[in-house]
Amino acid sequence: VGTPPAVEVRLAGPDDAGDAARLLHDFNTEFGEATPGAEKLAERLRELWTQGDTVVLLAGTPAVGVAVMRLRLSIWTAGRECYLAELYVEPGRRGQGVGRALMTRVLEIAREQGADWIELNSDEDDTAARALYESLGFEKTAYYYELEL
Amino acid sequence: VGTPPAVEVRLAGPDDAGDAARLLHDFNTEFGEATPGAEKLAERLRELWTQGDTVVLLAGTPAVGVAVMRLRLSIWTAGRECYLAELYVEPGRRGQGVGRALMTRVLEIAREQGADWIELNSDEDDTAARALYESLGFEKTAYYYELEL
Repeated sequence: VGTPPAVEVRLAGPDDAGDAARLLHDFNTEFGEATPGAEKLAERLRELWTQGDTVVLLAGTPAVGVAVMRLRLSIWTAGRECYLAELYVEPGRRGQGVGRALMTRVLEIAREQGADWIELNSDEDDTAARALYESLGFEKTAYYYELEL
Repeated sequence: VGTPPAVEVRLAGPDDAGDAARLLHDFNTEFGEATPGAEKLAERLRELWTQGDTVVLLAGTPAVGVAVMRLRLSIWTAGRECYLAELYVEPGRRGQGVGRALMTRVLEIAREQGADWIELNSDEDDTAARALYESLGFEKTAYYYELEL
């Protein structure tokens, strides 16, 4: 009979901007990072979608998880490169395969979009996320640095 | 009388594509990474420059160092975010302030371009680069992961 998928994953469109923005706002709030609020984030997502370099996935109805992918032309190959900018699952739905379902679709879409590789950053202490990425074949190859300007 | 700048840093334009490509090709060759060759890289840089999301800096005449910046609209702020994709100084010119001169201009340009932060990745064993980034205020906040698709 097989195992049912943990959750349905769909491509978010303009009508989903509010749901995606709510989850992104919750993400940064949970981890003590700055957020402009769900309303401004929804506006920004609609703006980014007009530029064509941003793909947002939602898991579940109502949405309980979100992934944000950014794409650009690669320097080193004739294809594109994908950056997984955000991946978040609501606290109450963790450990149920939602993150894996999102990541599976992320990799499919990255390939469909002509990306030759995908990159992401993960906090040292985010062991669940790191285990997920490593189980999918991601390799930790460097340190990630940032500077506010 | 002050200390003269280590080297002059300039914004690369289409006429500099060959110089920038040669340095990028040398970069990947030195570190055993794939490269399509200098000619294809020069073509690609010219293509990227038509898209407006890529800034290339060259240090010295003839050029002995290169930096490649990628810019995009940020999700979390109304500004942009900058990714320092590449930074390379020829082996014979290291330890002479060329990397620092490039990075100083990188930060200026990122600010001019409306970036609210800048990100980069650095190999664990690239201690000279990491010391440079840390001296400029960069903080190591996560691990960088990648997967070929």
